[in-house]
Amino acid sequence: MSPELEARRTRLLPAIKEARAGAFVTTALPNVRYLTGFTGSNGAALLTPDRAILFTDPRYQTQAPQESDCEVKIIRGPLLAGIGKWLKRLAVKTLAFEHNRVTFEEFAQLREQAKGTRLKPIIGAVETLRMVKSDDELATIRASVQLNSAALELALRQFTPAMSELDLAAEIDYRMRLLGADGVAFATIVASGARTALPHAHPSGHPISANELLLIDMGASVSGYASDMTRTYAVGKIDSKSRQMYRAVLESQLAALNTIKPGVTCAAVDRASRNVLKSYGMDKLFIHSTGHGLGLEIHERPRVGRKDMTRLEAGMAITIEPGVYQEGLGGIRIEDTVAVTASGCEVLTPTGKELVIL
Amino acid sequence: MSPELEARRTRLLPAIKEARAGAFVTTALPNVRYLTGFTGSNGAALLTPDRAILFTDPRYQTQAPQESDCEVKIIRGPLLAGIGKWLKRLAVKTLAFEHNRVTFEEFAQLREQAKGTRLKPIIGAVETLRMVKSDDELATIRASVQLNSAALELALRQFTPAMSELDLAAEIDYRMRLLGADGVAFATIVASGARTALPHAHPSGHPISANELLLIDMGASVSGYASDMTRTYAVGKIDSKSRQMYRAVLESQLAALNTIKPGVTCAAVDRASRNVLKSYGMDKLFIHSTGHGLGLEIHERPRVGRKDMTRLEAGMAITIEPGVYQEGLGGIRIEDTVAVTASGCEVLTPTGKELVIL
Repeated sequence: MSPELEARRTRLLPAIKEARAGAFVTTALPNVRYLTGFTGSNGAALLTPDRAILFTDPRYQTQAPQESDCEVKIIRGPLLAGIGKWLKRLAVKTLAFEHNRVTFEEFAQLREQAKGTRLKPIIGAVETLRMVKSDDELATIRASVQLNSAALELALRQFTPAMSELDLAAEIDYRMRLLGADGVAFATIVASGARTALPHAHPSGHPISANELLLIDMGASVSGYASDMTRTYAVGKIDSKSRQMYRAVLESQLAALNTIKPGVTCAAVDRASRNVLKSYGMDKLFIHSTGHGLGLEIHERPRVGRKDMTRLEAGMAITIEPGVYQEGLGGIRIEDTVAVTASGCEVLTPTGKELVIL
Repeated sequence: MSPELEARRTRLLPAIKEARAGAFVTTALPNVRYLTGFTGSNGAALLTPDRAILFTDPRYQTQAPQESDCEVKIIRGPLLAGIGKWLKRLAVKTLAFEHNRVTFEEFAQLREQAKGTRLKPIIGAVETLRMVKSDDELATIRASVQLNSAALELALRQFTPAMSELDLAAEIDYRMRLLGADGVAFATIVASGARTALPHAHPSGHPISANELLLIDMGASVSGYASDMTRTYAVGKIDSKSRQMYRAVLESQLAALNTIKPGVTCAAVDRASRNVLKSYGMDKLFIHSTGHGLGLEIHERPRVGRKDMTRLEAGMAITIEPGVYQEGLGGIRIEDTVAVTASGCEVLTPTGKELVIL
């Protein structure tokens, strides 16, 4: 991993230089992990063209040097306070910090500790790098996606009608863990019947009953990388309106997938899925974006939404997840995790998308 | 819940007034939940002495009014952008925002949208309120703690030597879920053998072997409220040094518990546990704080550490979790969740603390 970590830090240098700064600091954990390899719950990375220093607290004094190729400094108390001394030692005149991550409070700590150093905000520099995944990262995302699909399959074998949403969610999370996931990438959604119309329903004690829809949105975290998949099932018979919604959403999802290739904007992909739903008169029922990037975080840039003009690049990992939600009746969402390739995209999610009757 | 939500908002008014502001805004989800009841993943609360408005996106258009007693406004795009219009409509001259939560980026959005409104940072106003729990909150924390202990007991019944750390962690998380938890409050720690010396070890494929220590740190989330417990076990025989460490940590934990009562500082509680370990010559092996507040977040104020001069108050919920870590040999930590009472404290965690041999 070390050569890759070093390459990432090297790729960040132009952004630091462009900000006319001599060093860069981050305390955002996914960015710290990306740049240093450290997976703990409290860390800061200070980078200059010549040095990479990881700050953490004594709880991680053994773990940090095992995980990271950076120099490790152990600090008691707020990490940003400990960094001040190093800014002096390294004679940093201008320090770039993350406009989109640093709170006012952290900024005040930094200003207090870094007297004599100019502080310069830069926006999303690491997040921009993180949008395009390396081969190693894509392999990890693929492993996460495959584990996620395998967990769903195993959990559904335990499904019996009248099982509660909570019990099915428990079964799903358990299978992920047994297959080797670090944990869930986000709280598993299991919703049935009219509750499927809530795009982000918490699982409840509600029994999953015959002749109802069942929506499952789940993602694993594997070696820190997220997967994300949604499937909607029919438990027994469902009405023709629900079937029509399913067809529309599936067509919409496939249309979005078909537009993906390097150079296309996220907005164009979003438009493709939205247009299909419009042709079914269902666009008003599609109340969220078509998808989002994912990686070390479950939601990363880009956002596959109406207004995101980011152009897709080979190596990006995104979700495609149109859905329609009719209050009182129910909702349908179909979501895959996909990788943008040189010529189009590869759907990483192996789980089928035709309507399955449980 | 509504009268309690309203009471919380009323208790926040003096802080807004003290900041000479006419309104307060938060986008920090635990604070939004605390003040409005809304549990979704994207929300902002705007409070004035007369009105309480919850902003969220269309995914939550059905859920938000079900959960919250506030006026609900659905916004497409960044919530802070949508709030600008309301600041004008409500003629807010000065808006208090959270110094400790708002990033530079959010501040810039707010400044852009709230032209003509002065922005005033206030620090930790909601977090201060949240330190002292209501009876309802304590009942929920108690339920979370009890569920957590029950899950541990059920999981340990499945334990057999040579089971991997990951499989035991999977079992623990599964039991929590089956008992009705929303999920884990943090990534479950299961470490065995020399890995127990890593205070925050990720569970690995390492088989939990005879004649080794086994450390489990776990917490459930129940109706949004966290529990937190650590137990260390002997798998078969352990050496006398490990036994001595166990005795020292247990004595240290009991000493800290004995100092807890209203008016005592967190620093004094921390000192009590540290002094016991010092008498065993083990204080240098105790490389973290004695504990922390918990509630809607797993780490809340106060911090039960050397420097926190917060005085305990009846109704606070905190953890007490001294530990010692000897690289190469292993680590011991014992942690309970406790509630501060009028005369002392109540240990909420029902799980025993004498050394158990598995």
